[in-house]
Amino acid sequence: MTVAFIGLGNMGKPMAANLLKAGIDLTVWNRSAAAADDLTAAGARRAAHVVDTAPADVVITMVADDGALENIMWDGRLLDVLPRGAIHVSMSTISVALAEKLTAAHASRGSTFAAAPVFGRPEAAAAARLFVVAAGPAAALDRCQPLFDIMGQRTFRFGERPSAASLVKLSGNFLIACVIESLGEAIALTRKGGIDPHQYVDFLTSTLFAAPIYKTYGGLIADERYRPAGFRMSLGLKDVTLALDAARAETVPLPVASLIRDHMLSALAQGYDDADWTALADLAARNAGLKR
Amino acid sequence: MTVAFIGLGNMGKPMAANLLKAGIDLTVWNRSAAAADDLTAAGARRAAHVVDTAPADVVITMVADDGALENIMWDGRLLDVLPRGAIHVSMSTISVALAEKLTAAHASRGSTFAAAPVFGRPEAAAAARLFVVAAGPAAALDRCQPLFDIMGQRTFRFGERPSAASLVKLSGNFLIACVIESLGEAIALTRKGGIDPHQYVDFLTSTLFAAPIYKTYGGLIADERYRPAGFRMSLGLKDVTLALDAARAETVPLPVASLIRDHMLSALAQGYDDADWTALADLAARNAGLKR
Amino acid sequence: MTVAFIGLGNMGKPMAANLLKAGIDLTVWNRSAAAADDLTAAGARRAAHVVDTAPADVVITMVADDGALENIMWDGRLLDVLPRGAIHVSMSTISVALAEKLTAAHASRGSTFAAAPVFGRPEAAAAARLFVVAAGPAAALDRCQPLFDIMGQRTFRFGERPSAASLVKLSGNFLIACVIESLGEAIALTRKGGIDPHQYVDFLTSTLFAAPIYKTYGGLIADERYRPAGFRMSLGLKDVTLALDAARAETVPLPVASLIRDHMLSALAQGYDDADWTALADLAARNAGLKR
Amino acid sequence: MTVAFIGLGNMGKPMAANLLKAGIDLTVWNRSAAAADDLTAAGARRAAHVVDTAPADVVITMVADDGALENIMWDGRLLDVLPRGAIHVSMSTISVALAEKLTAAHASRGSTFAAAPVFGRPEAAAAARLFVVAAGPAAALDRCQPLFDIMGQRTFRFGERPSAASLVKLSGNFLIACVIESLGEAIALTRKGGIDPHQYVDFLTSTLFAAPIYKTYGGLIADERYRPAGFRMSLGLKDVTLALDAARAETVPLPVASLIRDHMLSALAQGYDDADWTALADLAARNAGLKR
Repeated sequence: MTVAFIGLGNMGKPMAANLLKAGIDLTVWNRSAAAADDLTAAGARRAAHVVDTAPADVVITMVADDGALENIMWDGRLLDVLPRGAIHVSMSTISVALAEKLTAAHASRGSTFAAAPVFGRPEAAAAARLFVVAAGPAAALDRCQPLFDIMGQRTFRFGERPSAASLVKLSGNFLIACVIESLGEAIALTRKGGIDPHQYVDFLTSTLFAAPIYKTYGGLIADERYRPAGFRMSLGLKDVTLALDAARAETVPLPVASLIRDHMLSALAQGYDDADWTALADLAARNAGLKR
Repeated sequence: MTVAFIGLGNMGKPMAANLLKAGIDLTVWNRSAAAADDLTAAGARRAAHVVDTAPADVVITMVADDGALENIMWDGRLLDVLPRGAIHVSMSTISVALAEKLTAAHASRGSTFAAAPVFGRPEAAAAARLFVVAAGPAAALDRCQPLFDIMGQRTFRFGERPSAASLVKLSGNFLIACVIESLGEAIALTRKGGIDPHQYVDFLTSTLFAAPIYKTYGGLIADERYRPAGFRMSLGLKDVTLALDAARAETVPLPVASLIRDHMLSALAQGYDDADWTALADLAARNAGLKR
Repeated sequence: MTVAFIGLGNMGKPMAANLLKAGIDLTVWNRSAAAADDLTAAGARRAAHVVDTAPADVVITMVADDGALENIMWDGRLLDVLPRGAIHVSMSTISVALAEKLTAAHASRGSTFAAAPVFGRPEAAAAARLFVVAAGPAAALDRCQPLFDIMGQRTFRFGERPSAASLVKLSGNFLIACVIESLGEAIALTRKGGIDPHQYVDFLTSTLFAAPIYKTYGGLIADERYRPAGFRMSLGLKDVTLALDAARAETVPLPVASLIRDHMLSALAQGYDDADWTALADLAARNAGLKR
Repeated sequence: MTVAFIGLGNMGKPMAANLLKAGIDLTVWNRSAAAADDLTAAGARRAAHVVDTAPADVVITMVADDGALENIMWDGRLLDVLPRGAIHVSMSTISVALAEKLTAAHASRGSTFAAAPVFGRPEAAAAARLFVVAAGPAAALDRCQPLFDIMGQRTFRFGERPSAASLVKLSGNFLIACVIESLGEAIALTRKGGIDPHQYVDFLTSTLFAAPIYKTYGGLIADERYRPAGFRMSLGLKDVTLALDAARAETVPLPVASLIRDHMLSALAQGYDDADWTALADLAARNAGLKR
């Protein structure tokens, strides 16, 4: 099986490197070619143009946003040059609407689309500890499973419609944002009430909230460590907005997501554009008068 | 050391039973006397009136709400009959304002007040697996520590001001309510999008959200198991309102708490008064049109 | 008919002055006696103690808040010295709960309680242009109507339960707060979009929003004129909180009130305590990044 | 001056009829041709295809939404066939983004774009009582002013950028939605508290809220008259969403708009799709338990 990997950012590069290390026959492409240098030095083939990835059995995309993927598939014509039977797996976070559009576009051309977004930060990608959320035709997913096993620690399948994986991913990011926002409010309250935030977070994460997510974000908030960003506020806003768009399409209100979206806009308007999305907690502290 | 235990409800009774089993010299009192029968049969002394608990070195209260505690301490005159040097430990959830009022009232009479609310449901109380959040004068807490060790699995201390323990407890309940609300919204969205809620919750709690709280509440929501109530909606509203009151006293906005409070009122107005507070998720499903 | 007027603040003083000018036999009392000097110079009798107002046929109270009124009625013992048949009319904004408590307290002593809160700022009080919202026993209201006619431009009656007038008053203040908040958001948006706020407000108030309230508050916001306060932010918070309390007692969610309450807390935490409640719009501008 | 009018719905038809009555040389086009019959019978010329409207000096569009206008201008090729110097005036509510896109598209082809959305319902359109909010190059607006004078009662100009008119229109609709939502909440509260809604609305609109908007919507809510729809809930959602989109582009949070959007989604999910957007108040009543 030959594989092509498109998009070598801070997530894509370590994922591709793991495929290569596992002996996969790999072609890579990135908008700015330099990002591929390490991988080609290690044995990957470099595609000169994005269409040159097409002969691969499986094409994986791991790009910044909907616009980047649409650009590659339509303007870049990858969709048209993929051979019948080829599998395209989108592993970045894309909208439910684009997942549906790609499903139809591939189907009409005889290729197959699957979505397999991942949970995990760059460190998890490097350590092959990602969680993969996959949806698409069973045969295609079966085919890709060995690849997911190389890149991640566990794969969860959500049926045949690729957009289901997008929905799970977006709702998951919404839940993470809820953890940040609620911790931010609780820590602003207790801090103003004289309680040490480290001790408070230690208490929470030793008891009912003993989950990785509370440890990670609780630690960042207690330390007030919002820069450099692991996941920028503007990307958080993008994902929460995509969750709200998906919810609108299903006619589902998401009041906490709406509230978080407003706080993110308020944060971006007040100078948090280079901050991690965890800085929602800094806005909560500011609104509590802790930052004057 | 002699101990009195006031308030033998579904939490207080198993807590008192554990003290008795551990060999503590125990006097008990409950508004309706019958609740004490099992304990007296097992060797506890029964106080005829609430003031008869006063000779004890440590008086523990575990009552329904602020009103019940004020009733005992002021109208019932327990505050006036407690000997100098006695310790009163409030282990139920009370307001920050009442904790402060009791601190001052005891201080002016020569007795000592401490707050030590607990996290855990009745099963955890029976199994002596509670988490104790304690605050008060260090000497008093040291004195009570053996009792906390009998009733709970671990104690976290938050300094000398008893109200700090109330604040931690109330903010903790607020964070639990956030988990319920956000899971409720996410599950309404994904369910309307065709994703099985059990599979979804299994995914979440196997990955980033591998915390007891997500397992407990995620399971209840996936099962739509909201009755009988473990913790009634109206009690949830009481606690979220106490958190908002504490936040107002500190001039801290808690927007997610406000939103949850509104949803709880909406739930209570629409027939969820006998439901568990987890039924916030049922309201989210209803607002998404899943319940017509 | 003899009348006593208690509470000579920036609203009470001009109201009492209008009664005096109309030839009413008037006794006055204020916590700090100096506020009564002008009125006694003009012919009013001064009560040495608050209980000395009791012989009057009608006692009007116009005080700062629930606490002040409870203080006068219970601690100050006015309730106990009022003769059978006397009428107490509360014209300040009080809680629904206190209106109910006073209704019962008067009934058990043979006196009568009515509530008649007013809409209008001090200028309107001076010009006798207030709107009076009255509720209470019909005979008592009939008796007081000549007084209302002296102080206001029009009286609206809401039945026999005094608390109904409180509810109408509190809900009215909530609606005013909604106008401020929504104008604040709309003006922040259009201002950031390059539109002159004066022109925008002129447009609104020349067309669909041609109401006094939009003119008053739209003008203040366009001018960014938030100090000195006509009605302080902290008083706005008090009233919105009373509306939320009344709504909780009726099990009614008021989501916009909750949101405004949070913004008021955020404003107070960030230095708007001496500002008019219209400064909610300044917070909206700040959240939009217009104030960095 | 020759004029073409595209879009003969319940607003466009009476507007076009007024132009015709005033003696304007008028060509009309509508997607379903029958809507033009009355106007052609009265002397208007019918364009067989949308491109046949192009020779007119001024082309007015009054269509359902962004999609319909994009369809006409790009797919229908009207943009390409308009002669240099022609003026296109969009009088329906469109997004800020589309207004900007059209401004650039016309500029690059030598034609001119202006936006002149209107406030008013179909009755106001028929009576030529619309308020026109116009923005665009001054010369173009001067040229169109006689037409605005025929269709409306007053025109407000907001400078040279057409998108400013869109922003004013969208923010105005947001303010109307705020009136509906806040009245809905206030009436739910007072109604549950025993106050007659007609009397309450009469009070409000006789005093501080004596504006057309409060009379119109207050009356509908007191009567619970939500069907047939004058302006459907789904159109309200569209406009509030466009306001939020415009606000996001300016990085401005609009928390009340977010809240209303969620309520609209909740209403649509629960069977209000054929109702007027005033039915937000019915949702408030339902959430208060008044509709079980």
